[in-house]
Order: sequence, then C-alpha cells, then structure tokens
Amino acid sequence: MQKIDCDVLIVGGGPAGGVTAVTAKMNYPDKKILVVRENEIQLVPCAIPYIFGETLGCSDKDVASCAMAEEMGISTIVGTIEDIEVSKKIAYCCAGEISYDKLIFATGSTPFVHRSLRHSLILEGVFTIAKNKEFIDKLDVYAKDKQEIVIVGSGFIGVEVAIEFASKGKNVTVIGGSKHILQNAFDEEVGKQAEELMLEAGVIYIGSDRVTQIIDKNDDNVVNAVQLKSGRIVDAQVVILATGYKPNTELAQKAGISLGHYGGVWVDEYMRTQNHDIFAVGDCSSRRDFITKEPSKVMLASTSAAEGRIAGSSLYEIRYLKGFSGTIAIFSTMVNKTAFASAGATEEQAKAANIDVVVGTFSGMNRHPATIPGARKQFVKLIAMRHGGQIIGGQIVGGEEAGEMINLVGLIIESHHDIYKVMSMQIATQPMLTAAPTSYPLVMASVVIAQKIQNG
Amino acid sequence: MQKIDCDVLIVGGGPAGGVTAVTAKMNYPDKKILVVRENEIQLVPCAIPYIFGETLGCSDKDVASCAMAEEMGISTIVGTIEDIEVSKKIAYCCAGEISYDKLIFATGSTPFVHRSLRHSLILEGVFTIAKNKEFIDKLDVYAKDKQEIVIVGSGFIGVEVAIEFASKGKNVTVIGGSKHILQNAFDEEVGKQAEELMLEAGVIYIGSDRVTQIIDKNDDNVVNAVQLKSGRIVDAQVVILATGYKPNTELAQKAGISLGHYGGVWVDEYMRTQNHDIFAVGDCSSRRDFITKEPSKVMLASTSAAEGRIAGSSLYEIRYLKGFSGTIAIFSTMVNKTAFASAGATEEQAKAANIDVVVGTFSGMNRHPATIPGARKQFVKLIAMRHGGQIIGGQIVGGEEAGEMINLVGLIIESHHDIYKVMSMQIATQPMLTAAPTSYPLVMASVVIAQKIQNG
Repeated sequence: MQKIDCDVLIVGGGPAGGVTAVTAKMNYPDKKILVVRENEIQLVPCAIPYIFGETLGCSDKDVASCAMAEEMGISTIVGTIEDIEVSKKIAYCCAGEISYDKLIFATGSTPFVHRSLRHSLILEGVFTIAKNKEFIDKLDVYAKDKQEIVIVGSGFIGVEVAIEFASKGKNVTVIGGSKHILQNAFDEEVGKQAEELMLEAGVIYIGSDRVTQIIDKNDDNVVNAVQLKSGRIVDAQVVILATGYKPNTELAQKAGISLGHYGGVWVDEYMRTQNHDIFAVGDCSSRRDFITKEPSKVMLASTSAAEGRIAGSSLYEIRYLKGFSGTIAIFSTMVNKTAFASAGATEEQAKAANIDVVVGTFSGMNRHPATIPGARKQFVKLIAMRHGGQIIGGQIVGGEEAGEMINLVGLIIESHHDIYKVMSMQIATQPMLTAAPTSYPLVMASVVIAQKIQNG
Repeated sequence: MQKIDCDVLIVGGGPAGGVTAVTAKMNYPDKKILVVRENEIQLVPCAIPYIFGETLGCSDKDVASCAMAEEMGISTIVGTIEDIEVSKKIAYCCAGEISYDKLIFATGSTPFVHRSLRHSLILEGVFTIAKNKEFIDKLDVYAKDKQEIVIVGSGFIGVEVAIEFASKGKNVTVIGGSKHILQNAFDEEVGKQAEELMLEAGVIYIGSDRVTQIIDKNDDNVVNAVQLKSGRIVDAQVVILATGYKPNTELAQKAGISLGHYGGVWVDEYMRTQNHDIFAVGDCSSRRDFITKEPSKVMLASTSAAEGRIAGSSLYEIRYLKGFSGTIAIFSTMVNKTAFASAGATEEQAKAANIDVVVGTFSGMNRHPATIPGARKQFVKLIAMRHGGQIIGGQIVGGEEAGEMINLVGLIIESHHDIYKVMSMQIATQPMLTAAPTSYPLVMASVVIAQKIQNG
C-alpha cells in the first residue's frame, strides 16, 4: 500500500474544506496540505436549484473552480477516506495510507429524509438534492420529459427548485408542514408574501400538511403519487425530497470523535474537537444559535467558509481571535424577481425562545424619489430586545439590494448594536441605489421600535 | 405685525430640517413644532442631476413629500427668517414675529463659486446647481436647445449632471482640477475606472486644469466659452459651476452664533451650539472627519438626516446616546450603469493625513457561480490601520448591490471593526444576489491585508 505524507489532511472539498485548505496554506506556507474529496467535479452547492431551470440550465455551469488551490500548491486526491487511526495519525483510503499531523473533517451534510419515507428512495422518480454532480444530472435528465413534479419541503432549496422547474412549464406542487413557505427564516406575514410570488410563478403550495407515503400504484418501482396526512393524494412523476440535511459524520464517529447537538462533530470556538490536532468545519460540525445559544440546525456555505478561515488559521497556533460565538442564520433568496432576506431570530422564534422583544416594521421604496425608473417597494422588519434595544433579527423584502442589506443587518446583530446606534448610523444614500436618507428602512424600523419602547 | 407662538422653530425644510421636525414631534408630541422654509416646493437634493437627462426628465418628478410632517401636525410657513433676537427668543419673518423656545438652524448650503468666477454668474448661460426648483427649471429650460455644455467640477454632482446631459445627445465637457474624476472619494486607479465609463457615455474630461475665465466674446452678456489655466479655450453655450457648496450661515452669523471650521455653525456631539437652546443640523453645521478628526467639508443628506434625528430627540433632554463622533464620508453613485461607492478615507487621504495604513484589494464576481445571468465584476479596496487592523476606508466598483455593500463598510468603520473581525464576519451569500461565500470581496480584501501585515 502506498504511503502518503502530509502535514494537514482535509477530508472534504466543499466550501468549508476548500476555504480551510487555502487559509491553511496562506498561514502556514511551509506545510504540506492535502485535500481528499469524493467528487472529481465539485458543484457550487447554493446554485444547484438553478441547474433545473432557465437560470443555469445545466450542471456544467455550476462547477466550483479549484484553480486557486492548485496554484497555491495544495495537493488533492479524489477518493474516499475509509478509516482513521487517530492514535497513529493515519488515514486509510484507496490511494494508500495517509499520515498527517493535523486533521480537519469537512465532510459536509447529506440530505435528511424522514424515517417513514426512506424506503421509498429506491423508487424510480424519487430524488433528494444531494450535492453531487452525477446525482443531480440523473435527476435533471429524468425530469426532462416529466410534467408532474412534487417537491416535499418548503425551505429555501424546495422553493428555489420549484420555481426553476415551473420556469420550464412543468406542473410543480410544493408540500410543506408550515402554513406558509420559508417559515424557518420568515414570520408568517413575510413568508406569505413569498408564497404569493411563488404561486404567481405557477407553483402550487399545499401547506400545513405532510407526505405520509410515496405511492407506486403499479408496483413497478416507479413513483406515481404522494399520499398526504390530510388524505389528499397528489399525482407525481417526480418526487423531490427537500426536507433538510444532516451532518455527514460517519467517518468521524468511526474514528471515535465526540459528537455534539444534532449529530454534528463537537467543536470549540476555534473549530477544534476535544483532540486539538483534529478540527471540524462546515455542515459536519455542531453549531449553536448566536442569540439563544441553543443547538442550531442552520447550514450555510457562508458560515462554513467563515469557520474554514478560523480553522485554517488556528491549526498550529491561534492567530486570529474568532469574532463570533454561535451561528446567525443569515439567508437570502429570490422569489419571482423579488428578494427575500432574513438574519437572526424571527419574531416567532424569539417568542418561542421566551425572549422579550419589540418589533418594528417599515415599508418604503428602494430608490428615491419614487419616480426613479425601476424603483420598487422595500419592506423591513426588525426584532429588538425590549431591554437594551439590541437588534437580534431582521427580515427584508425588496430588490436585489436586499442581498447586501441583510449582511448589514447581520453585522448589526453580530456587533450587538442596538436600535439607538442604528438610528444615527452613518450611511450613503443615492437615488439610483438606495432608499431616501430621510426614510432609510433600517433606521425607520429602529425609530418605530424606540417609540414603542418609550411609550411602554 | 402678527405674533406667532411655537415651542420649536426649525429654519429650513431640507432633509436635515425635515427629519429634525419629524423626530422632534415623535419625541415631544405636546410641543408645537414650526418649520419655516424658503421654497414652496422642496426638491429631493440628491436626485437633482437626474432632472436633466432621461432618468427623471423634469423637476416635477423630484419633489420631496411633506405629507408625513403634515399628518403629524407639524406647522409650516413658507417664507424667509430675516433676523433673530436670541436674547428674546424671537425670530422675524414676513409672516410676523415668531417666539420660540428651541431654535434649530437647518439652513443648508449654497453653491460655492471661486472668487475669480463669481462676477461671471450674471452672464446668461452660466449656472450653479442650487437646490431650488425655480433655479433648476431655469437651467433645464435654458439648456434644452443648447448643444455645448461645460461642467466645471469633477465631483459627484458634476459627473452625474454630465452623464445626464450626455444621455440627451449634448456635447458635454467636464473640467476638473484633479487628474481623474471623483478624486475626493476614490483613489486614482478607481477614479480612472469611473472616468473611462464616463467617457464611454460620451462625456469629455479635461483634468488637472481649471477655469480661469468665463468668456463673453460678443460682450452681450451671453457666455461663449471658458478659458483654462492650460491655455485651452473650450466653447460653451451653457457653463455649470459644480465646484462644491458652502454652509449657509448668514442668518446664524447675524444672530451672533459662533461658527466653526469652514464657516459652519459650531456644534457639539448633540448638535447644540454654545447656547443649548439653539441647535444646528445638516450642511450649515460644522463637521469634522470621523478618522482624522480634522475639519471636514463632506456634505451628505444621509449624514444630515442622522444629525436631524439626534437634534430632534435631544431638544429638551438627551434621550439617545449619539453613536458617532465625526463624519464618515460615505458616497455612492452610478456611472454608465456601473456603481462606484466609497466610505471613509482613501489610501491617498490616509497617507496625506500621515496614517500608517495597509491596503488590500480583491477582484471577483458579484454573483456565483460566474455563469449566473447578469453576473459582473466586483472590485473592493480596503484601507486598514497597520497597527490594530481597524478598517478606515473602502471603495467598491460593481453592480447595484454596491449601494448597500458600502453601507456595510460604513458600519465596519463606524464600529471600529478590524480586518480580523471581517475575516470571520457572518454573512448571507446567494447565487442570484451576492458573491461566493468562498470569495466574498470584503472578507478577501481583509485576508490580503492580514497577510501583508503578517509578512511585514
């Protein structure tokens, strides 16, 4: 068996693994960095939904570049690590025995399917959204000549995939457990707006329901329909289960690494496991919420990349103080040409976590004056602590600018800034690019909250 | 003479005065708030350039709404305050004698014209960009059948006005003192990019030069050309002097109020003059720079609005701690469909102020993967303190998202966040809305700076 030596072994080549590798090489240029990844071609995970519709149209347009890693002298093996002997610092894969000094799990996540439906995954026409080109291509080809598409799950992936399929003229039905779509990220009145736009794009939504059975009427291993808890049966030629992801920790478990909440690898603030030569980053690591400090199921490539930067720079010494403790859920998406973005806790989540909050909303225009061509409505909702006034959540509906505006809300949350700070925040406003200086929505929503607090 | 009573008298109805009035009424609902302003119709100042081109096309589309103030029960008089007797708390205007308890100067700014050219303002065809509908309409009508337009000044107003006139097929020449345009907000290599786009829009730029004389060849009081220091003569049927603004403080001076730097009314952090019953907000107040603490000439409606919120809530007691000390210059604009945005100090300004800085740049795409329809280049430059790593400036070139992204940079500067914080900042990334999580430009530019600092 071939013996391979490296200093830093990174298992996984997604956003977390890739950023860890690049950061490690930047910080420790003399170390030999080796990435072992399963996929020859790595997809850009967040853009997978756009493969199925008019936006990208094929998976070849969604390939992540490895050029930077190669240029920097980072080695890569395409293969699977089968086992790790932690005490000997050796990993075993088809290519041989890999000895390492520092080990990073960046093994990502795999689609989660409810126990009751797992056996149906063998049926022809039933798919998940796995982050794997071969698998995605199979779904893409299979769906090409099918008309009836059922998507189970009304989160971001489900909604994005639904709209893309609808853009190709297919009959698409989304089935979700909550009354309105995107309810992990938006309060009901905002999710409802997104839902209306999804319906306008031609997608049907069945809410407050769930799939109890995936039906193969002819007993020929081909899906025909789904049975809902409500009793409804929905015809389906393709069923896509977009019901979340779970940390991929099989290898870590086999190696005896301790897990944390929701099955992710337990890590400290610097992404170290209990063994400080072993790290975990990205979706395979265990996360908790920035505000509530409760276990968090949020999986985001952006958070994974931030974790990769921390791990990559902390391998041999802690170089940079980690700026945050806990994951702020910051999301954005487009629904039928309108942007929806959310950061931190929703009002509902805050109340469920027994947080005493005050909420402020503001509706205005995203350009000024409103006569500027292309100006459109912009809605902001902020959620703040009644005592202290710190902003812990925000939701935005508007034009494409919402994608960066929500990052501003994210930084406000991460900085523990309060509504009083935001009320006199220094900003740029420009007719063609932003709302008016006199009614900038983040400021105005903060003013509304301050008024509510003042008036008791 | 009619006697008018009020509690709070606000002189001026622009963004600063308007926001002060609304904030005062919100915080002190029992007080009688009176705004005295000179213009019956108030223009949205930042959008004035767009009146002259295809974007708005006329000043009627650039009118600020006073509906909110009216609804709230704020009184307004259109007129001019001629004099103020501070000791008696009485202001005199055509409408009568106004007695007040608290007085706010929000008298704004008026175009600055170099002494050597002031006498030419009487020539037909010579204009400034005054924030006054009648005046703007006069220019608009006069320019309608003229072809040769010369704009003196290469700041934001000059450039925006130039591009709008060019969009109507006119021959437009901009004359600026600096090598490239927009040099108060951008370093040379960034200003150069903006300039190239302005040239593509059909505008001619003559840099590193200045107008020494405005020529009336036929001695008939109609402008024909401008004479430049370099010896060049440029034909002109319309000459627009966009050479900055100066605080409008005539009334305050007459009332014996102390002025500060650059002729603005001296104010403390709560926008109070030395007399704590008298405030000044907006362009008529004296400002200093957030970073250098030197006097600042920056005039922005957004900063004015923030000052209005502070003043309006601090009239009878200080309710909210002011979040900032000193003005961060945060600008954004569109040049030929590309956004240019800047916050804080440029590299050049930092070096001129003897600040020891390290600079990082990153060029990427504003969507991910790069195959997303509409994806375009995005460039970020960050300027950080070598010791401490705090970010003190940033420049962005890209799509419309730059308008809100620069506000993120603004908050980073205002929060004294350093590159290490930004490197692990939590953000949302989405294919249709932002750059990739693995190469988000603010993070990447911070990484570049960290590497430079580490490598000495």
